[in-house]
Amino acid sequence: MVKVGIYGATGYMGAEALRILLQHPQVEVVWATSRDGEEALNYHKNFYKRGIQFTKPEEVSGKDCDVVFFSTPTGLAAEMGSKFLHEGSRIIDFGADFRLKDQATWEEVYGRKHPNWELAKQAVYGINELHKEAIVNTKVVANPGCFSSSAILALAPLIKENLIDCDKIIVDGMSGTAGAGVDLDFALHHPQMHNNILPYNVVNHRHSYEIEQELMGICNEKVNINFTSYYVPISRGILSACHCFPVEHVTRQSLLELYNEFYKDSYFIKVIDIPENKDCAWNYMPYPWVSSVVSTNFCHIGLSVDEKRNRIVVFSVLDSIGKGGAQVGVQNMNLIMGLDEREGLENYGLYPY
Amino acid sequence: MVKVGIYGATGYMGAEALRILLQHPQVEVVWATSRDGEEALNYHKNFYKRGIQFTKPEEVSGKDCDVVFFSTPTGLAAEMGSKFLHEGSRIIDFGADFRLKDQATWEEVYGRKHPNWELAKQAVYGINELHKEAIVNTKVVANPGCFSSSAILALAPLIKENLIDCDKIIVDGMSGTAGAGVDLDFALHHPQMHNNILPYNVVNHRHSYEIEQELMGICNEKVNINFTSYYVPISRGILSACHCFPVEHVTRQSLLELYNEFYKDSYFIKVIDIPENKDCAWNYMPYPWVSSVVSTNFCHIGLSVDEKRNRIVVFSVLDSIGKGGAQVGVQNMNLIMGLDEREGLENYGLYPY
Amino acid sequence: MVKVGIYGATGYMGAEALRILLQHPQVEVVWATSRDGEEALNYHKNFYKRGIQFTKPEEVSGKDCDVVFFSTPTGLAAEMGSKFLHEGSRIIDFGADFRLKDQATWEEVYGRKHPNWELAKQAVYGINELHKEAIVNTKVVANPGCFSSSAILALAPLIKENLIDCDKIIVDGMSGTAGAGVDLDFALHHPQMHNNILPYNVVNHRHSYEIEQELMGICNEKVNINFTSYYVPISRGILSACHCFPVEHVTRQSLLELYNEFYKDSYFIKVIDIPENKDCAWNYMPYPWVSSVVSTNFCHIGLSVDEKRNRIVVFSVLDSIGKGGAQVGVQNMNLIMGLDEREGLENYGLYPY
Amino acid sequence: MVKVGIYGATGYMGAEALRILLQHPQVEVVWATSRDGEEALNYHKNFYKRGIQFTKPEEVSGKDCDVVFFSTPTGLAAEMGSKFLHEGSRIIDFGADFRLKDQATWEEVYGRKHPNWELAKQAVYGINELHKEAIVNTKVVANPGCFSSSAILALAPLIKENLIDCDKIIVDGMSGTAGAGVDLDFALHHPQMHNNILPYNVVNHRHSYEIEQELMGICNEKVNINFTSYYVPISRGILSACHCFPVEHVTRQSLLELYNEFYKDSYFIKVIDIPENKDCAWNYMPYPWVSSVVSTNFCHIGLSVDEKRNRIVVFSVLDSIGKGGAQVGVQNMNLIMGLDEREGLENYGLYPY
Repeated sequence: MVKVGIYGATGYMGAEALRILLQHPQVEVVWATSRDGEEALNYHKNFYKRGIQFTKPEEVSGKDCDVVFFSTPTGLAAEMGSKFLHEGSRIIDFGADFRLKDQATWEEVYGRKHPNWELAKQAVYGINELHKEAIVNTKVVANPGCFSSSAILALAPLIKENLIDCDKIIVDGMSGTAGAGVDLDFALHHPQMHNNILPYNVVNHRHSYEIEQELMGICNEKVNINFTSYYVPISRGILSACHCFPVEHVTRQSLLELYNEFYKDSYFIKVIDIPENKDCAWNYMPYPWVSSVVSTNFCHIGLSVDEKRNRIVVFSVLDSIGKGGAQVGVQNMNLIMGLDEREGLENYGLYPY
Repeated sequence: MVKVGIYGATGYMGAEALRILLQHPQVEVVWATSRDGEEALNYHKNFYKRGIQFTKPEEVSGKDCDVVFFSTPTGLAAEMGSKFLHEGSRIIDFGADFRLKDQATWEEVYGRKHPNWELAKQAVYGINELHKEAIVNTKVVANPGCFSSSAILALAPLIKENLIDCDKIIVDGMSGTAGAGVDLDFALHHPQMHNNILPYNVVNHRHSYEIEQELMGICNEKVNINFTSYYVPISRGILSACHCFPVEHVTRQSLLELYNEFYKDSYFIKVIDIPENKDCAWNYMPYPWVSSVVSTNFCHIGLSVDEKRNRIVVFSVLDSIGKGGAQVGVQNMNLIMGLDEREGLENYGLYPY
Repeated sequence: MVKVGIYGATGYMGAEALRILLQHPQVEVVWATSRDGEEALNYHKNFYKRGIQFTKPEEVSGKDCDVVFFSTPTGLAAEMGSKFLHEGSRIIDFGADFRLKDQATWEEVYGRKHPNWELAKQAVYGINELHKEAIVNTKVVANPGCFSSSAILALAPLIKENLIDCDKIIVDGMSGTAGAGVDLDFALHHPQMHNNILPYNVVNHRHSYEIEQELMGICNEKVNINFTSYYVPISRGILSACHCFPVEHVTRQSLLELYNEFYKDSYFIKVIDIPENKDCAWNYMPYPWVSSVVSTNFCHIGLSVDEKRNRIVVFSVLDSIGKGGAQVGVQNMNLIMGLDEREGLENYGLYPY
Repeated sequence: MVKVGIYGATGYMGAEALRILLQHPQVEVVWATSRDGEEALNYHKNFYKRGIQFTKPEEVSGKDCDVVFFSTPTGLAAEMGSKFLHEGSRIIDFGADFRLKDQATWEEVYGRKHPNWELAKQAVYGINELHKEAIVNTKVVANPGCFSSSAILALAPLIKENLIDCDKIIVDGMSGTAGAGVDLDFALHHPQMHNNILPYNVVNHRHSYEIEQELMGICNEKVNINFTSYYVPISRGILSACHCFPVEHVTRQSLLELYNEFYKDSYFIKVIDIPENKDCAWNYMPYPWVSSVVSTNFCHIGLSVDEKRNRIVVFSVLDSIGKGGAQVGVQNMNLIMGLDEREGLENYGLYPY
């Protein structure tokens, strides 16, 4: 059994990690911290009377754990990580502390000095579809941002094959409000948000930098990600729409083949290749639905091509705290600990969700 | 491995049974029928490229199965059930064909002649908290209606202890729209329903009869269930509010003790006993939340007492196609087949959902 | 032109009063206060660049106004009301300061000493369907609670005709989250609430006392209102379901006639008398829809009778800050100022809303 | 009084026209047709018992009307329009029959022969911010598509000033489900849609052609609109996000000034120029909210500039059946009939909506 600790299980991401790890057949959750201690169960009612215990953060140690997951405010994983590493644990950070490879960029983007860059240098960026071997061999995983996973997975095949103008990529990321986390905000108060769509971080989004870093790692040329995010009134899940201008002739069919080939060994990526049919009443069917993947570690990808106007649009959907967060963290843990990557992550999405 | 067939997997209930059974470690799904055959995968996108196959109904047999689940229009399970029984399978009907013990009542309530009353007479009503032993020994289970499970579980302890006026019980059942099934309806068209609350079957609801039957079975006196149902704009889940007039002095504390005792061996029933506290900002906490149990086989029950006006209100929440449908069907299958009742049903609810 | 001030226009109720009064052809809004002053326009985007000004509360006077509307925390209208009265204004309080006729009850229910009971004694309870003449002649209106309006309007005809057991009335009030006001709360954070139903104030709700007071005023005997409230995931609007036990034989038809007669002079009350028809596919149609009345001053009432089990259920729907709040306040203002009660309040609901 | 007829008032667009025209102080609605006749009131409950009458389409004539509004399936306005014109009425078509200036394009886009191109040639495209004078003088208005209004209003100032690369404009249009109309569809069934985001018409959307036509009319060079549409789970309203690549240096401030100048005489366009402030907790505030304009004839526009990556994003929000449909139709009617364009259209949005 793999022994894990969850440092910060009060919020949505940490609580999702806890949920998945409790159900994982090869894992023992040694501790999960909440500053509220046992009181936390009053609001985590999905765990009510199921024997879960929350521990205060000051009472835990990495000695008991093979892996410690961090779901903490920016900087804390970098500050605390070395302690847990020295105590013998690997660490997987759901936050942004270890995601960027350039210190100056990190410090500009996050507006502060990095607390421990030596630690950051050891980290592997946790998109396992691109970095599986490195993840297997690391002790520090930088779990990707939710929008980042979504955009990287949607764009990687196009970038790899040099099919698009890398300077002019537009990504619209529509997210459920769980992406905002558990902290209250006027705009996310239910009566405000129930009938609204909320653009935010509309230019220069922090996730742009990780997306660019990872895609540049594939093609070795400059990539510009013009990313804009929105909250839409669902709770979980992201749809990213990635618009690209092809530099050679492509068709929907040729791209579907490319994507199927690119992801043929990636169990958790499913390419939706239902035919487009203008005469069909169900013109919603050929594209991925975010409702199909919420609560899971799956990412569905679909696409279309406007041959008249020369545009590709790729859609990817995932759960921001599933494949876009806690569950991909567990997939990375499986890899590090020598388990089958699917272990504990086979659940189907809900229908209807 | 228990071998199962699902007769009617296109709709929400059958598809939920399929989802749960595919994840069940002791079950092999031998077949699941859909009149659309393979085409069905276009809209069951949660199963997309996961190796699921749908079979046309005319191609299946009970010879291959230990248990066949029916999720079919009223009458069909009664018509087809004997065939599957003769072929050696047990049957669990998610529909209403076998729920009532009195033929005349059934025929009045459902407005038609019953197709096979001999079969109905063999059936056990599948509330396992009340009828566990009978379920273990039957070949035909009448799975309860979603509202029925919710109301029976909320009221059984009060009825058992003769604490309330059985002639004047009011139940308001608020349901997600998945309860309406997959058939389209003007009132359930998204732009109509998104900001609406929809009363329906406001008196003399069909589920009233099963609730009365089961509660009368506990107390051996007449029980009147004044039931009204509503769709509220969520997709899955039911909150039932059961209002009763106590015939002796009770307090919230005394009732919480009663409920905890009554359900002490019922793993899937959790009594919410968080203290009420008027000074507390979080005055929403002491009662069950439907969002905590959706996708699971759990039922949360909470309550309050108005000592001034002499009223008890009991709230129960469950997923209409989980503990109120397909998942309790799987729990019943576990019992029939000699498995631990928890097998395949331990999943936690989502947070947030 | 009637000159009005709005004391407290930041929150939902005050802002709705402002919206309606700005559109009112016979009204001039002299001032509307917000502690945020001009900053308030950043979040009242419906008023953006429409020439609205917010004034700081310390800068306003009743000398300029015929009527001042209070939308303030409990106690403040009672504290400030005399000042505005002395300056020559009438006052209409959207809060609870003047709603109860018994001081001891008020102080028990609101858990504090009343700041100015002499003022409270002058107030008329603002259900104009019951107290039109008194409202015309008062200088102080206690605008009813949103649930109170809904329940009183639904029950008054039955109470007047002594048709029901007044000791055993159950009211379930399902409200949009705007009813919680603009203050943030964990349970009303969008990702928590989007798929939830939230019981609160489940017994001994403060509005029970006003409902009982008003209904007792009709029948001169004790009335017990067993009221429970819920937030459902819509933003505006209330559906109240009022369950009663008839003491003589009634039918749906006889009650519809009673209600139509009772409200024949009440322009803003519409009795839904669409026939119930079990064979009709549209079994949602015969009852009122909350989506039809949101944003308006209308209240729709519908009902059904269970002759088998001896129960009446009456549904009323209204907008908690429309006919259940700010708009009925404007209707009361119309009466006080000698205008047609319909002035400024004729708007139709949205379809779809 | 202007006399109007509404040909097709059953659906959402026609019913919205009816709602607005009934409230219009200078209009008399002579007739509104529904194939269901009086039965239609059962589901238009917002009109319930308000004295509205629906007429069967075969019973109406243009002789009684100054203006006839068409809200009918493609082709019908073209087929019927001449009759009403000959009877003396002007016509305003909410559909697509008269929107394109090139017959071959129309026939390719709509997949059929145009029924009456002579009539189409008389039509003026009803964006009154661009074509006010022509609208004043026409007898046939082609009311713009909802997405078209949204995109044209967002992009016109940039196009006019030649500030962007016209070949690479990306528009993501997120719409409430009312945009799908009243016809039922599996994907828009409430339990399917409540937690989903639905891409549709993802390339080569019919509205692209009108947007391109109108923008090319401004700049006299080729414009490529890469448009993709989505349903998000709200009922009414559209947010369009228009991404452009500037061809010269611009700043948010310079563009806000441009937009304010461009729209200085357009009462119904409001440019949101709240400062962006990274340190501010309310990072949602500087951009338009769709909830602020639903039910109105207003369009809010906001924007941001990524000076690092060289991108402009312009957001516009409007109600798809308000400023994006029926209400702009009424604004056009006001212009044609010599009324103030604001008449009957001054309503504020709801807060909260």
